[in-house]
Amino acid sequence: MRATANTSAATRFLPVIENEAAAGRIVLVCEHASCFIPPQWGDLGLTEAQRLAHIAWDPGALDVARGLSRRLDAVLIHTPVSRLVYDCNRAPDMAGAMPARSEVHDIPGNADISPAERLARTEAIYLPWTEGLHGLIARRIALGLRPVIVTIHSFTPVFNGKPRRVEFGVINDADAALPVAILNAAHKLTRLHAELNAPYSAADDVTHTLRVQATPYGLPNAMLEIRNDLIATAEAADAMAEQLAPVLNMGLVEIQKQAKAS
Amino acid sequence: MRATANTSAATRFLPVIENEAAAGRIVLVCEHASCFIPPQWGDLGLTEAQRLAHIAWDPGALDVARGLSRRLDAVLIHTPVSRLVYDCNRAPDMAGAMPARSEVHDIPGNADISPAERLARTEAIYLPWTEGLHGLIARRIALGLRPVIVTIHSFTPVFNGKPRRVEFGVINDADAALPVAILNAAHKLTRLHAELNAPYSAADDVTHTLRVQATPYGLPNAMLEIRNDLIATAEAADAMAEQLAPVLNMGLVEIQKQAKAS
Repeated sequence: MRATANTSAATRFLPVIENEAAAGRIVLVCEHASCFIPPQWGDLGLTEAQRLAHIAWDPGALDVARGLSRRLDAVLIHTPVSRLVYDCNRAPDMAGAMPARSEVHDIPGNADISPAERLARTEAIYLPWTEGLHGLIARRIALGLRPVIVTIHSFTPVFNGKPRRVEFGVINDADAALPVAILNAAHKLTRLHAELNAPYSAADDVTHTLRVQATPYGLPNAMLEIRNDLIATAEAADAMAEQLAPVLNMGLVEIQKQAKAS
Repeated sequence: MRATANTSAATRFLPVIENEAAAGRIVLVCEHASCFIPPQWGDLGLTEAQRLAHIAWDPGALDVARGLSRRLDAVLIHTPVSRLVYDCNRAPDMAGAMPARSEVHDIPGNADISPAERLARTEAIYLPWTEGLHGLIARRIALGLRPVIVTIHSFTPVFNGKPRRVEFGVINDADAALPVAILNAAHKLTRLHAELNAPYSAADDVTHTLRVQATPYGLPNAMLEIRNDLIATAEAADAMAEQLAPVLNMGLVEIQKQAKAS
């Protein structure tokens, strides 16, 4: 069911970078793009249905991110491994990094992780991810092209048995300027039920990527959450990207105006 | 005088890690340990005296850090390249990252750096440094051994013609708990003229390493500054480490007490 990876010679699962030479300022980030569980972690004790469910990844998020990448001429970086093995939006000692339970599901393969196994997963998945994203950001900063970091997520319409009304959530870490500007643009340009810091907020420790990669460099940043029933097919996801691309553009123009005025 | 490094196949100057298997919780960091200017950057247009002066590195800081590493059983990481080529305690777009002027000295080799050269230095020096330090920290976090980050610096007794009275400065980034505890311990255990946030503070953008590597993970952290006339020989630096080791230990015990009480 679960194999302990060899810490010294283990595979490093490198992030996937698409449209790397993009001229746009936005860097799109998708930490929960894949439900792939590499063979060395077996099936984690889960059924196939569980391994394809939202506990393993954010269904539709990568399709939306790709649609935005094309429309905004933005570079896109995403993880190649399921968050059930390592959730790249969590620090190595957070419970959610290798969750023993997710929503109503126990994850048997994560029930009793040794420090050595925690280290092995950190080295195989988290470190290549953080290095890949940090390198992408630092290179653009060096070139004088300070990026804007936007992470793309999806959420389940029913969580712990309760339906969620929000369709589009915009979540802020330390700097709320871009999230507020995106929310206002969504209200102006779409009929989506959009809310700030819903269905989660930074208090739930969901802004790890922004906190590590964007906030210390003073880069504008936001986390986007889309209800996954609205992006269940490739066509629906692309239609969502078509709706959201002008929303992000309007948000960006607004914070540039604010920066000039201050 | 100055050669443009090749961005694609350039050497990566890896940080030096000493005492890596240390059992102590402190990670000692020395961003300005070396005055070495690799041959591809020539002499940056400076005299030999300038290339050995405090503008190129923090004289004595590495010796103090090594003395602390031995006494505290702490891992130590330091840069192998002069801060005149790349100052690893600065983001790639900060003026101080590749300074055109430092104190009263112009740095001709940094007078007109192209974006491509800025990128080349970032890839050759800054990225290997940040990845090395981040890897060290993340591995310890994964093993359940959350580290305490302490950076070791020295400062010149006379700056822009003005003498400095402070001998030992303790500087905080977002969390002042450890710096305040270290300052109180220095007042109790030594006769050093010790001050908080002197001769610099985070407002001068000197806490980049702490901000990127420690604050986002909620790790206790502090930046130490020692006046370099007090550590001008290897013996003096070791005597300073002998004085400061119990100061750091007392500071650490104090914040552990506070953490238990809260």
